[in-house]
Amino acid sequence: MVLMTCQILMIRQVLMDRPFNFSPGPATLPEVVLDEARAELHNWRNTGVSVMEMSHRSPHFEAVLTEAKSDLRELLAVPDSHRILFVQASPTALNAIIPMNLAQRGERLAPVDFVHTGHFSGRSLKEAEKYTRTNVAASSEPENFTVIPPQDTWRLSADAAYVHICSNETINGTEYFFTPDAGSVPLVADMSSHILSRQINVSDYGLIFAGAQKNMGIAGVSVVIVREDMTGHALPVCPSVYDFKELVRHRSIPNTVPVYAIYLCSLVFRWLKNQGGVAAMEQAAVARSAMLYDCIDSSALYFNQVDRMCRSRMNVPFFLNDVSLEKAFLAGAEKNGLLNLGGHRSVGGMRASIYNAMPLAGVEKLVSYMREFERRS
Amino acid sequence: MVLMTCQILMIRQVLMDRPFNFSPGPATLPEVVLDEARAELHNWRNTGVSVMEMSHRSPHFEAVLTEAKSDLRELLAVPDSHRILFVQASPTALNAIIPMNLAQRGERLAPVDFVHTGHFSGRSLKEAEKYTRTNVAASSEPENFTVIPPQDTWRLSADAAYVHICSNETINGTEYFFTPDAGSVPLVADMSSHILSRQINVSDYGLIFAGAQKNMGIAGVSVVIVREDMTGHALPVCPSVYDFKELVRHRSIPNTVPVYAIYLCSLVFRWLKNQGGVAAMEQAAVARSAMLYDCIDSSALYFNQVDRMCRSRMNVPFFLNDVSLEKAFLAGAEKNGLLNLGGHRSVGGMRASIYNAMPLAGVEKLVSYMREFERRS
Repeated sequence: MVLMTCQILMIRQVLMDRPFNFSPGPATLPEVVLDEARAELHNWRNTGVSVMEMSHRSPHFEAVLTEAKSDLRELLAVPDSHRILFVQASPTALNAIIPMNLAQRGERLAPVDFVHTGHFSGRSLKEAEKYTRTNVAASSEPENFTVIPPQDTWRLSADAAYVHICSNETINGTEYFFTPDAGSVPLVADMSSHILSRQINVSDYGLIFAGAQKNMGIAGVSVVIVREDMTGHALPVCPSVYDFKELVRHRSIPNTVPVYAIYLCSLVFRWLKNQGGVAAMEQAAVARSAMLYDCIDSSALYFNQVDRMCRSRMNVPFFLNDVSLEKAFLAGAEKNGLLNLGGHRSVGGMRASIYNAMPLAGVEKLVSYMREFERRS
Repeated sequence: MVLMTCQILMIRQVLMDRPFNFSPGPATLPEVVLDEARAELHNWRNTGVSVMEMSHRSPHFEAVLTEAKSDLRELLAVPDSHRILFVQASPTALNAIIPMNLAQRGERLAPVDFVHTGHFSGRSLKEAEKYTRTNVAASSEPENFTVIPPQDTWRLSADAAYVHICSNETINGTEYFFTPDAGSVPLVADMSSHILSRQINVSDYGLIFAGAQKNMGIAGVSVVIVREDMTGHALPVCPSVYDFKELVRHRSIPNTVPVYAIYLCSLVFRWLKNQGGVAAMEQAAVARSAMLYDCIDSSALYFNQVDRMCRSRMNVPFFLNDVSLEKAFLAGAEKNGLLNLGGHRSVGGMRASIYNAMPLAGVEKLVSYMREFERRS
């Protein structure tokens, strides 16, 4: 009883005045997930060991992994045709690993189609060139990446191994609000920065990938959801540990895996289920992003250049008409407990990343600060 | 004051009856490292954010990374010629990444020499075959991997890109107690299971690599210490994010890195320094392993097949003369708070992994249990 009171006291203390962290990733985590991680850090479910110290072959970790996979399958309604893999590789590494797994078609290397919508799809495109021919089916570079090219402008190759899209560009602040139809060519989507923030039909995709550090957990693991019949064609140069067929065969445990990062995912998935799942997350994302875009659009100081039909609900870049005020804006924000609002070094300005774990209160506070700052400027 | 008392009470509670975890990896961590991680889990140094939520480009994480690198450099006396990299890849992935980085010599692919001493060097050898020719310079397979082949039996290639050794075989329980001399050919050593447990001369190696999850921290990151002049020759198929030259150029942060896993390393490195560094760890390892081997050798029930000159101080496999007693041995051990003593599924029997973080008290308790079990059998 004394211990329980202590625990409550301590948790209250550490959470008091918790600032709002708008970092694009690694990003803020739900408070209750941090609480849970803290509470069982030394001793997971009375096993006497921390998950950090747990053999990847132990029944304890098996339970963690099974729960994580089953919760993710439930949250995204992943059909039986698709396998869920946890891969110890960043999304940037997956830019190489995916073409190494999917570019081979029978006896020959097939080209890969890319829709180039900004920083991350651009990096994926560049990396794929190491392994096969690439074709830019569409690009919004002429529009400075402020739009998603409508599908009727895409020039897809008939013989492509797959079409790659980045369905939410973290830096450019764009998001797809349609699911491309590539016919019989599989669609590969980098969903790193908006996975689990909206309902999708997994069957529409051949492969979905996402780093955990934005909407699922901590940096150090990526999730790959792959249609099983697309595995088994890895190029000979593909490291065995990144051959999706091998990962499927070994149920994501070909060798030691990042057990703690997977555990954090399992806590986030459980939290998501308790919050009402992806449908509830989507509603919350609509509310948060609408509030912030309304503030920007109704202001004379702030502006966002992204086409209104393509604005990301997760990453909201914005600029100040008077660039000289940027430093004061950021310093004042930090003083008010609004952290990491600086834009990416490649584009400057500001960016608020408002993932699932960002409470509406965080956006309310940001909007209130922005209005006050504008009034006083 | 009340909070401090609470904290002490709680830490005492969670640590009470902490079992000894002999897992080969992910492995036991020092208790004080778990305490520190727990204490600042919500709020790292009054920044208001958890390290888990910290941007890899933030000054806060920069401080974590800088401290980790500088402490490791100090602990191993890494000379200026060598760079320390934190890589988001398992040692198994490095089995591919290393030949992709080092096999190219000028215009041609050079062969790689391997000394095959067990499970892990065998896997490294097999993976390297994907990228270049390999030569088994020596093998202890005929001795069932119970010895390290003496250097005068090695048949090295004159034109090898490098010689690969696994300086401690986690599964087979062997360890090198000499540093091979390969002349002008660089030596590459997989030190995953004994790094920081003994003093080494880093200059003797072209490259040292180790997964963090045994002697440095948690699964999810590997350390690579590489002589800088050996970088810059990656094969075109090497994923950019694993090109050592790029990693050096970006100071280990080419893109999002596993910030929490690197943070755990930094805590372990600080703990190591407080314990007296690698020299103190070596003394402790000698004491722990001698106690356990003495128990095995003086027993009629237990035996270890490894040549006495090559016995690992970190991983001690042992067997029972009466195989039918194994289940009872393991069950009794677990009941006594001695966890994860089962041998690797490929060899069976028992294995005690006694890394830096294993207190002598853990080995004392194990030895006492083993004697009692033998007496009663």
